[in-house]
Amino acid sequence: MSRELTVSIDAMGADAGPSVVVSALVRSLQRHPAAKFILHGDETALNALLARWKTKFAHRVSIRHSAAHVRMDEKPSLALRRGRNTSMWRAIESVKIAEAEAVVSAGNTGALMAMSMFQLGMVEGISRPAIAALWPTTHGQCVVLDVGANVESDAEQLVDFAVMGEAFARAVFGLERPTVGLLNVGSEEAKGHDAVKGAARMLRNVALPMEFAGFVEGDDIAKGTVNVVVTDGFTGNIALKTAEGTARLVVGYLRSALKRSLLSRLGAFLASGALKTLRRKLDPRAAGGGMFLGLNGIVVKSHGGTDAFGFAAAIDMAIDMALGGINKSIAADRAGVSALGREAAVS
Amino acid sequence: MSRELTVSIDAMGADAGPSVVVSALVRSLQRHPAAKFILHGDETALNALLARWKTKFAHRVSIRHSAAHVRMDEKPSLALRRGRNTSMWRAIESVKIAEAEAVVSAGNTGALMAMSMFQLGMVEGISRPAIAALWPTTHGQCVVLDVGANVESDAEQLVDFAVMGEAFARAVFGLERPTVGLLNVGSEEAKGHDAVKGAARMLRNVALPMEFAGFVEGDDIAKGTVNVVVTDGFTGNIALKTAEGTARLVVGYLRSALKRSLLSRLGAFLASGALKTLRRKLDPRAAGGGMFLGLNGIVVKSHGGTDAFGFAAAIDMAIDMALGGINKSIAADRAGVSALGREAAVS
Repeated sequence: MSRELTVSIDAMGADAGPSVVVSALVRSLQRHPAAKFILHGDETALNALLARWKTKFAHRVSIRHSAAHVRMDEKPSLALRRGRNTSMWRAIESVKIAEAEAVVSAGNTGALMAMSMFQLGMVEGISRPAIAALWPTTHGQCVVLDVGANVESDAEQLVDFAVMGEAFARAVFGLERPTVGLLNVGSEEAKGHDAVKGAARMLRNVALPMEFAGFVEGDDIAKGTVNVVVTDGFTGNIALKTAEGTARLVVGYLRSALKRSLLSRLGAFLASGALKTLRRKLDPRAAGGGMFLGLNGIVVKSHGGTDAFGFAAAIDMAIDMALGGINKSIAADRAGVSALGREAAVS
Repeated sequence: MSRELTVSIDAMGADAGPSVVVSALVRSLQRHPAAKFILHGDETALNALLARWKTKFAHRVSIRHSAAHVRMDEKPSLALRRGRNTSMWRAIESVKIAEAEAVVSAGNTGALMAMSMFQLGMVEGISRPAIAALWPTTHGQCVVLDVGANVESDAEQLVDFAVMGEAFARAVFGLERPTVGLLNVGSEEAKGHDAVKGAARMLRNVALPMEFAGFVEGDDIAKGTVNVVVTDGFTGNIALKTAEGTARLVVGYLRSALKRSLLSRLGAFLASGALKTLRRKLDPRAAGGGMFLGLNGIVVKSHGGTDAFGFAAAIDMAIDMALGGINKSIAADRAGVSALGREAAVS
């Protein structure tokens, strides 16, 4: 890491409680010696958990007490109205008042999105935020967005997602001109509904630091055909969860097939190292949760059921996004989406 | 099989040529002793391929010559205008003139749909056809529709898909009251866009021979949460291809992990029977292609890249659908979608 930065953390969001978050924090403190952290949550609990690390990291961690936390099943609208004293609200507030550059939470996704939009607002030119997910591919990983912030998206919003996606791929994957594809039911130009066709017309006509690869199909995501896959939040969310379900199904089949005979049990025992590698590759913790893009501040959501390993990966992601200057790229590139591009969409 | 029936076959659609179709036909002739077949395609080629089976099955197979066949990359609109002399057109025609109850083709999906709609028309009350796919689950299989016949669907069309899906599950899975779920981004009532919310309101108010389970999410498909998953063709197609891509990714990871060390290679060798079982479970051939529902006649699409095993499974599927009387169920159940249900959607 090349410069100092501060990350704000909602310590109360994980299903397993603040101990997971504090363990992750200790990993991150060791991994990122130039990073500072503001920890929001129950002061007594956090002080106790941090006791043995206090002398070592005292100057790099500050604890801020908050009296409440957002429940996992709480309605986002309710959390927004009544949650000003929660660790989640306060953690976002640290970004709003610029004492931190990024916030990480494992709490209620809807509440985190509502509070972040309310407090941080949008990047200039972007009308709606998106949730981006990392996706394992045959030769690395790609980023898919939107995976659930919006249930419907028009052509212009899909173009915004493409801008946010290429900015992410440049900031985090370190690619100069990432390839971007629009998720569709076929790769031919005439396929799909008006929103994807309109977005394709615009993306062919804009000058952005990316390679627009046209339409891609569902199986192209895992193939790694492109670095960035753009879709509406309805389709993206269903694709993501369908993939998770399929991976679990295949691993379940494999497990029961390997238990069927003595010989295959022996085989499974001998290959257990390989099977562990497989599990690690498919482990959703490694992906570090979803990235909220388009907001005036970096917000990373870790899985509610995360462990310290997963929450630390989410912190890594937040730091990478901040150091990569993703929001400056989004604002600049969105401004560059020329009038020509906009006209192309309606012509 | 309890009664005689005739299946019409497009012998020229498979990528591997008519030999695959004839091998599949021989399997089906042995498997279904009460079934007859009409084979459409190049007479000389088909006679040669069938030569050694002729005496045994002569009374159950008739060959009909057609001079042309639809190419895989042909535009559906062009095939429809100029394809009257193709094996595909003629094979569908056999159903239209009621000399066969079902047609099976491994040819161009778009052309097969366009020609089937044109020649057969829709079941009374159904406005748009759907393509249904079988999906492996942790405890068997479910059916998902639409997986690509339509790029957008309103609430009323989603209700049609639910009717077609429950009729399919009753006819083919033999279930009395199949469970039906609407694919969405969350299971709560307020989630999703207008089409899914409207369809849910209607399905809660209609009296159909099914159990409406409300909204399901992407990972519920492979979990087998419901027997029938209803969605628009855009989302369904992307979910299906995403699942195929994910399964290939996981199997690829597994293969390379098993090759990494001598020990794991030995393990893979000992467990090779189990790994074969896994491959068979995930084999798309076993699913037998897509079923076109809502048409006045049974149309089954086998994968273009199918082998004899896969094409025979598609023939099995066509016979099951015909014997199960699926189209009578669809017509009757659609008529039963009461005015009450329709009102509920707009209220």
